[in-house]
Order: sequence, then structure tokens, then C-alpha cells
Amino acid sequence: MSAIPLGAGPEFDRIRAIAGRLGSRAGVLGEDCALIEMGETYLALSTDLSVEGVHFRREWLSLEEIGWRATAAALSDLAAAGAAAVGVLAALTVPAAEPPATFAALMDGAGSAVSSVGGVVLGGDLSRGPLLSLTMTVVGRTVTPAHRKGARPGDGLWVTGALGGARAALLAWENGRQPAEAARVRFAHPEPRLEQGAWLVAQGARAMLDLSDGLAADAGHLAAASGVSVRIDLELVPADPSVLAEARQSGENPGAFAARGGEDYELLVAMPPEFTGAVPFPLTRVGQVETGSGARFLLQGAELPLGGYDHFA
Amino acid sequence: MSAIPLGAGPEFDRIRAIAGRLGSRAGVLGEDCALIEMGETYLALSTDLSVEGVHFRREWLSLEEIGWRATAAALSDLAAAGAAAVGVLAALTVPAAEPPATFAALMDGAGSAVSSVGGVVLGGDLSRGPLLSLTMTVVGRTVTPAHRKGARPGDGLWVTGALGGARAALLAWENGRQPAEAARVRFAHPEPRLEQGAWLVAQGARAMLDLSDGLAADAGHLAAASGVSVRIDLELVPADPSVLAEARQSGENPGAFAARGGEDYELLVAMPPEFTGAVPFPLTRVGQVETGSGARFLLQGAELPLGGYDHFA
Repeated sequence: MSAIPLGAGPEFDRIRAIAGRLGSRAGVLGEDCALIEMGETYLALSTDLSVEGVHFRREWLSLEEIGWRATAAALSDLAAAGAAAVGVLAALTVPAAEPPATFAALMDGAGSAVSSVGGVVLGGDLSRGPLLSLTMTVVGRTVTPAHRKGARPGDGLWVTGALGGARAALLAWENGRQPAEAARVRFAHPEPRLEQGAWLVAQGARAMLDLSDGLAADAGHLAAASGVSVRIDLELVPADPSVLAEARQSGENPGAFAARGGEDYELLVAMPPEFTGAVPFPLTRVGQVETGSGARFLLQGAELPLGGYDHFA
Repeated sequence: MSAIPLGAGPEFDRIRAIAGRLGSRAGVLGEDCALIEMGETYLALSTDLSVEGVHFRREWLSLEEIGWRATAAALSDLAAAGAAAVGVLAALTVPAAEPPATFAALMDGAGSAVSSVGGVVLGGDLSRGPLLSLTMTVVGRTVTPAHRKGARPGDGLWVTGALGGARAALLAWENGRQPAEAARVRFAHPEPRLEQGAWLVAQGARAMLDLSDGLAADAGHLAAASGVSVRIDLELVPADPSVLAEARQSGENPGAFAARGGEDYELLVAMPPEFTGAVPFPLTRVGQVETGSGARFLLQGAELPLGGYDHFA
């Protein structure tokens, strides 16, 4: 089998089945980026789907925001590998009845997202299709790529930024309410953390991934890939300010609410024990790497079972 | 504007609009591959959509064939750039009601296609979606990339293999008939011409592209990119043997039928005048590069207006 050790969930079951069927016809599957060695540099590549009705609804976002978000989500995989952006290839489907300007508006958002981190639109493909669908393939480069594996017992677990904002927006929409503007921005306009990823690699990051499925699920992925257990203290999880109102409505602890939120596109990183967190951007210690397997979530000392988001669940 | 000079057609109108809107946020658009310089080597990248109901129907192909065809179509862009394959990233959508084995069957075909030219599956993304949709992003490398521009008056125009087989299959299906097996194979199992592309570059190819839209349309694309006119002699066009029966039914000249057929994934190349065609694979001279603009198609000395296939027409 040619996949890295993967955590639980229907999407990973599918990747396991594909890796088993492909055998030697596949490289290493299950990382945030594929890596291609070119002399002293690695090229990092990742492809990411955004499908109307699955990843977003048109009522929630402008076309430019749909293009930005799809591209930022893909670029976030480069951040997880500690890579710098080169560019993006965009494959778009749009219903035949739409005006041609729909493509240009989507690409306007994509172009802004990729140029915000120093890359360009490299190419693409267009087709009609039953709904909006965007496949963004990002290309980056790095001399020292980060991986999901490599965390060791004793390492600290840290997250960039604040979590749960995208989930707060999603819950509001799903309950027929308009989200607070701060939450809407977290969903519509995620900022891929490429600078932060490169910084953390330079500081000795042991293992890193981006929070697309949510801390609750992604912590398990890091644990599985690294062959360790991770402990998250939910009191320490930095909840986005926009989370508080939604968490109160759902009766959840804000840290638990934030940990269960997907699509924040922040980074989760295991740093050596001596790392102090002295970096020029928001970074919060949320837990600890331990011996064993799986992810544990503690709230006031008691274990809390948490589930992340899975597109197939 | 950051696109190469593009030919006519609704798809190219869309690319022009996107390039205009992106401005400096885009690289060079409109080539078969995006090129990234890495020391002495260029990385070649291309992304290609295959959407159920637009590019194929499930009644026509097995899941493995759908995966092969989508991947081979993308790999064909590497052939046009004269690049060798490194691998493919696959973004797939499948309806939620399908068994997980659908993904593995599609990827089985994709894996066979990419390994047939020495590459591997590098990664991917999976999602549910309303129908089967495959976005294949291929990665290759070359020291001497070929382009669509560069043809000069006096150059000979050549095509690899034989044309029209995929169209013969398509016409049969669209008219409720089973295509001849040879035609079905040309549609279901195209062989990307990576070896041939590299060979032609080594022989001094001036301009090259792959025949996805059909010779009738693609000859115009090469002419526009190179700033020349091209003349195709339809008597010289190598029609696939499977074309003859279908051409007879539609009352078309077999060369004209073959020239109007898309998705053969053969190569069209402008070679210097002194090139003799001595290569170890089927290669046929079909015309000539001239001064002027546009593509002309001659049958027994008379000009014939031909249209190619466009996914937006």
C-alpha cells in the first residue's frame, strides 16, 4: 500500500481503497501535497475541489468569493507543506445558461487569492457542467518540505490564528439566519497561511497540516500519520470571536465549538518541546504529543468525544 | 493581456475575457501546458476536465475507460509540449449514492494511463457531486519545451497516427448505433503521444499542439499562435480505417470527416522544410505553413469551410 498511515473516516476509507488498487502506479498518497524533487528544490502540488451544494451555496457567496475561497483552500495545502506559492491551475465548470462573465468573475477571485501570496494563474480548463465546480491545483516550492508525520511524544501542539469562524457562519446559514459579518468573512475569505508555514518550518516544525476538516478530525490525522497520540486541551483552543454567539445558541463550550469547525484553513503544527511560541503572528499552544494512538480532547480534565467534518459522512 | 494570440471560438473568447480581467495576476495563458523553469529543466503542467454528459456518457464507457480517457487527454498536453510524464493529480466527483468502489475503478483507469507513459498518481481530491466529473492535472518535465507559436512560412505540417476514429464512434452512438470496435477503442482508449512529441522536438519541431478540438479547429489555433496561415490538403489527411463506413453514411470525404473529428489526441506539428518524415512512428505530411492568417482546407484544389468541435458551441 502506498498511502501514509491515515486516520478514520469515509474519505480516508476511499483513499485507502484507491491506494490498494493502484499499488506501484501511485506515489505517496494522503499528504497535503505531492512532492517532486528537482535538484535541491521540491515542487509541492495539491489539487482541491469546490463543488456547489457540497462546499458552498451561491446564496452565501459572490462569484469572486467562490473563486477566492476555492483557491485559498488549495493554497492552504502549500502552507501545510511549508512551501512558497508559484501559481494555480483552475478547472471550472459553469452551467451553459450562464453568461461567459461568470468564468471571469470566478477567476477574478482566484487571481486575487493567488496573487495575495505571490503566485499567478498558470492555466486552466473550462467546461459547461450542471453547476459551479472549481478544481484548483496549486504549485509551490520549498527546500525543506513539512509532512504530517514526524511528531514525537513531548512535542507541543500549536495552531495559528483563531478557529470556528467558518463553522459559525455555516450554522447561521443552515438555520436560516444571516451570519455575523466577521464569521461570514472567515468562511468567504480564508487567508492561506503560507508565510506562517514557512516560518514554522524554519523554527523546526516536526509535523504540520492545515485545518480543513477541523481540529477535532485533523488532530487524529496528524496522530495517525506520525504514529503517536495527541491530547488537545479545549480550554486552550483559540475560538474566533464570532464563535461566541453561535456557541451560546448551541450550548457548546466555545473551544469545543471551534475544534469541531472545519474549513478555517489555519495550521496545526507539532513543535519541539523547547519551542517557546515566539513568532510574529498569532500562534497558540493547544496540546501535547504523547505516546499511543488517536486524538483525545479534554475539557476541565474530562474527555469529550468530538467529530470533525467529512464530505462523505 | 497575458494570453498568447488565440484562434476563434466561444472557448477562446472566454479565455480572452479571463486573461483581460486577470492582467498581471496571470502567466501566459492559452498554451497546452504551463511551464515553470527550475534550473535547466522546465516543469510542464496542464489541467483537463472530463464531465459526464459533456465529454462522455456512462453508457458508452466502463469506469476504468472513463478514468483512462480523462487521464490520456490531459497527458496529451504534455506530449504537445514535448515533455516526459512525471505524474497526475486527480480530482473526482461521484454521486453520493454510488458505492465507494466507483472512485477506485476510475482511478484504476487513471493509474493505467499514467503508468503507460512512465508516470504515477501523485495525489488527488474526492467529493460527492451530481455526476461523474474528473479533473486531471498532469505534471511533466522537459529541457526543450515545444510551443504553439514558432511555425514559419515554408514549414511542413504533419500529424501523428490517424484521425477521425473518435468522431466515428461518437456519431454512431449519437445515432443510436453501436460503433465499430476499432472506433470505440479510439474514443475510449486514446494513447497519448509523449514519445512522439519528444522525438519531434529533437528533430527540430517549430510549433506543436495536440488534436483535442480536431484538425479543422486546431490548425487555426496553431496559425493564430504563430502569426501565420496554414493550408491543409484534405486528400493527405490520414483517416482512421474506422472512419470510412461513417464517412460514407454522412456523405463526407474521409479526409474532411477525419479533419472535423475532435478528441483523437494525435499531434499536429510544424517541421522545418528540410524534415523528411523519417521517424519510427506513423507521421503524415498534411499541409504547409504560409504567410497570412487563418487555416485553409483544400479538397481537389477547392477550398472547403470546416468547423471543429467546441464545448461551448
